[in-house]
Amino acid sequence: MTNLKKLIRNVKDFPVKGILFRDITTLIKNGKAFREAIDAMAKHYRNEKIDRIACVEARGFIVGSALAYKLGAGVVLIRKKGKLPSKTVSVRYKLEYGYDSIEAHTDSISPGYNYLILDDLLATGGTSLAAWKLLEKKKAKIAGFAFLVELTDLNGRKKLPKNIDIFSLIKY
Amino acid sequence: MTNLKKLIRNVKDFPVKGILFRDITTLIKNGKAFREAIDAMAKHYRNEKIDRIACVEARGFIVGSALAYKLGAGVVLIRKKGKLPSKTVSVRYKLEYGYDSIEAHTDSISPGYNYLILDDLLATGGTSLAAWKLLEKKKAKIAGFAFLVELTDLNGRKKLPKNIDIFSLIKY
Repeated sequence: MTNLKKLIRNVKDFPVKGILFRDITTLIKNGKAFREAIDAMAKHYRNEKIDRIACVEARGFIVGSALAYKLGAGVVLIRKKGKLPSKTVSVRYKLEYGYDSIEAHTDSISPGYNYLILDDLLATGGTSLAAWKLLEKKKAKIAGFAFLVELTDLNGRKKLPKNIDIFSLIKY
Repeated sequence: MTNLKKLIRNVKDFPVKGILFRDITTLIKNGKAFREAIDAMAKHYRNEKIDRIACVEARGFIVGSALAYKLGAGVVLIRKKGKLPSKTVSVRYKLEYGYDSIEAHTDSISPGYNYLILDDLLATGGTSLAAWKLLEKKKAKIAGFAFLVELTDLNGRKKLPKNIDIFSLIKY
């Protein structure tokens, strides 16, 4: 088993001064490590049928679609406003300064499917919470949240709903 | 075998008036169809070792990372300017109006690895050609181009280098 954490690169002052960015590109370019990471995440869901993975743009697509392939699940895109071509449902959420919006195709979220919400990284949890609200709006069943990396110091976990499974593979 | 083409939605006038957008979200949300699509693409490379898939942001990430998982390859991100945290190599290319740039991490492209360039859709071929130039700059070995969908009327194929394999799963 590869030491996956060691393959993540730490980049100082990105995207802004004072932030230590955890760069997963050095892990995913390694085919063996990438497969090990996806397999380890899939293992967490071995006793539950996940129908669709709701992946947050854009790095969430990388981890989410490989995991969806492995689990036999479908992929649902959660994107910034204006990027999806058909009818959407959207959620506006607060950032440190100002607001942002995410949306998904209305026909991609339906009751009767079991959804996993996935992003590459859990930081403050704002986007993940907005994704949860998006799925709740359409009364989807939500199995939990999955992340490749979690920055535990930022307490994103505490912002997410109680009584829902939160899984992260690599913790800082 | 699912009729994958039938699962693609046609959206009129997106992103601008007069364009018929081929929307893959209706295919990829279907777990069975998504897996079949990736398996069918993987079959094309059954006799060649692909080391890394260079995926073009953002929908290329969806198809590319699932295919990389299946093939045991690594994932290399080709992104718009300013999104990658470490040292990059970039290529500027002409659009219908104006210019755009794509870049990749310098350390993700090296001679000695066999690369597949992947995007979800081949239209006029401008971005794919720029991706090829990016890899050429770093003297990478390039196995070919792969697309989930090809719009044959737009002749993107003719813009790409001769004597290199170009594979697309679904043609219009």
